[in-house]
Amino acid sequence: MSIATRGPVRVVGTGLLGASVGLGLRRHGVEVQLADPSRTALALARDVGAGTPAGPDDPEPALVVVAAPPDVTADVVRAELVAHPTAVVTDVASVKGYVLAELRGARADLRRYVGSHPMAGRERSGPSAAVPDLFLGRPWVIADSGVSHPDAVLAVRALAVDLGALPVAMDAAEHDAAVASVSHLPQLAASLVAARLRDLDDAALGLAGPGVRDVTRIAASDPALWTSILAANALAVRSVLVEVRSDLDGVIAALTDAALATGPEDVAPGALSTIARAISAGNAGVARIPGKHGGAQRAYSVVSVLVPDSPGELARLLGDVGAAGVNLEDLQIEHAAGRPVGVAEISVLPGSAEHLHAELTARGWRVVR
Amino acid sequence: MSIATRGPVRVVGTGLLGASVGLGLRRHGVEVQLADPSRTALALARDVGAGTPAGPDDPEPALVVVAAPPDVTADVVRAELVAHPTAVVTDVASVKGYVLAELRGARADLRRYVGSHPMAGRERSGPSAAVPDLFLGRPWVIADSGVSHPDAVLAVRALAVDLGALPVAMDAAEHDAAVASVSHLPQLAASLVAARLRDLDDAALGLAGPGVRDVTRIAASDPALWTSILAANALAVRSVLVEVRSDLDGVIAALTDAALATGPEDVAPGALSTIARAISAGNAGVARIPGKHGGAQRAYSVVSVLVPDSPGELARLLGDVGAAGVNLEDLQIEHAAGRPVGVAEISVLPGSAEHLHAELTARGWRVVR
Repeated sequence: MSIATRGPVRVVGTGLLGASVGLGLRRHGVEVQLADPSRTALALARDVGAGTPAGPDDPEPALVVVAAPPDVTADVVRAELVAHPTAVVTDVASVKGYVLAELRGARADLRRYVGSHPMAGRERSGPSAAVPDLFLGRPWVIADSGVSHPDAVLAVRALAVDLGALPVAMDAAEHDAAVASVSHLPQLAASLVAARLRDLDDAALGLAGPGVRDVTRIAASDPALWTSILAANALAVRSVLVEVRSDLDGVIAALTDAALATGPEDVAPGALSTIARAISAGNAGVARIPGKHGGAQRAYSVVSVLVPDSPGELARLLGDVGAAGVNLEDLQIEHAAGRPVGVAEISVLPGSAEHLHAELTARGWRVVR
Repeated sequence: MSIATRGPVRVVGTGLLGASVGLGLRRHGVEVQLADPSRTALALARDVGAGTPAGPDDPEPALVVVAAPPDVTADVVRAELVAHPTAVVTDVASVKGYVLAELRGARADLRRYVGSHPMAGRERSGPSAAVPDLFLGRPWVIADSGVSHPDAVLAVRALAVDLGALPVAMDAAEHDAAVASVSHLPQLAASLVAARLRDLDDAALGLAGPGVRDVTRIAASDPALWTSILAANALAVRSVLVEVRSDLDGVIAALTDAALATGPEDVAPGALSTIARAISAGNAGVARIPGKHGGAQRAYSVVSVLVPDSPGELARLLGDVGAAGVNLEDLQIEHAAGRPVGVAEISVLPGSAEHLHAELTARGWRVVR
């Protein structure tokens, strides 16, 4: 595959993102110079094949990718713009506005700077978790500084495309508002809900079903990293949280009314409809999340099948799904607490559900829904 | 399988839960009498095999299961206690305290009443969605009225066990506090987060990743049903929402401080640690959710593999996982927006990950993480 990125590329910060950028570029034969204040992180990145530690005799980089923690990104970008006066410099921090504001304040050369944010990550961090396909199929926001040279924008866009990502042009403020709603708010909501589970007794936690598991899954995130991200996007996150608080206040007031009433007909006027509106607004919002392949969300039919919890059973089931000529759109496995059996929830196009149900039943599977 | 439930069992309300109870009991040969104010729902329940519509010459039921909407449950239970003076009466409403309070207020015979709540459901509702295995492996809360006769408690417990559920004894207040935290709060949080997506532009929504999808999945729930549930558990839900609001206020204040600061070192003392504490409390809470098979939560290693989006590929992959001798603990499929390829995230015991990685690579799979 021929690629558009012109090297050498200097990667500053060899954690998960930086080392993955290096790995992806090395796969295409691009020269990658690595730098990191941690000698361990630098050596690990080299060992996984992300590039070569930068040295004094290195040729000047054409592109510098700053993959430092959010709170030091602006300082590092500024230093790189000065140290490499002909290079295009980008960063991959998950917040863009404050980096741009700090660079403006420091009178940095913003013609050569283009902010960016690949929407990729994983549970593990550090260079040993790096993989060249980290960015595959992920949106990668390209945030023009407002005065970025078109060639600089093209260079960063080429980097995203060469790493398999889907470039999305947004300015820094648009980006920060978007991630406040689609990333930072969900993270905080998951954390606040999960925090309420901390002091429950075991019997209460035993009632936890798939819903609370879904809502709180990302609550296992790193506090230091998220504090840094949220603080860097403080204004945009605050703004969306204030809206949530207003909705929450409405629901709390409605529940106060409902708690005082002796029956539904006795609840203060408007209280029940406030609650119903909150749930309906959620219906409308979740329906807007794009579905598979970036298309509009599509309603699938779910066929649920009991699967004995032993090796090979799930493969056998999916083999039978394939043999029935049905394309599986999604799959969730739910393990029943205390039972050696799970339920595989197979999502298929609505027209295929009945056929699949019949075929699996004929093959001896217990279809439960 | 010999069962302990003694019939006839009268099921009042033949929606998803009532019809599933009937189906499960009919499978064991128990006589089931069905009643529902909707003649359509009643006929559908009969047609799916949930029992026989109740008639004037029916023998007296030994057990009555009230599966009515939450807001009418107490009235129906009271009427059934009067109409069937020798029967044990239970209900399956998702809130227990207000039912008991109304029955107490009406001086109902609470010796023959035992509240209950099977923690089961599905996206579809109504008798046509009923399945006998709906309760399999699910917790089923048994809430003694405080003066319930031990035989009445045993009868309801037997019902739960005979339907494959795991009975859990709790009083009504304990139950309501537990579901406020593990079910009603997550539902509201999902709705409030999803509501913020309603007015975003398409570009912003295009950045939605797996996190926000998980957090908002249950936001697609029915507003009428949830308004009724939340209003019926108003006090307990209000109490946990007030705690969440207090945490939220703290985070908003901290973000206000952070937004005013020119850098991390300049943020008002305590603000950053307030944010970090909120995320850490979430870490602690999510870690308490019981894991697979009801045991303590276990950390799995995840092996991620690229899977072409065509029929049979996933089955082939899982066949290779089985051939490698590795037991799959969980599986998530993630479709990359705009690409004809997905990523299967295979959870395995930590000791098996490297072996599986090597085996799958040897079989030609592209392991990305």
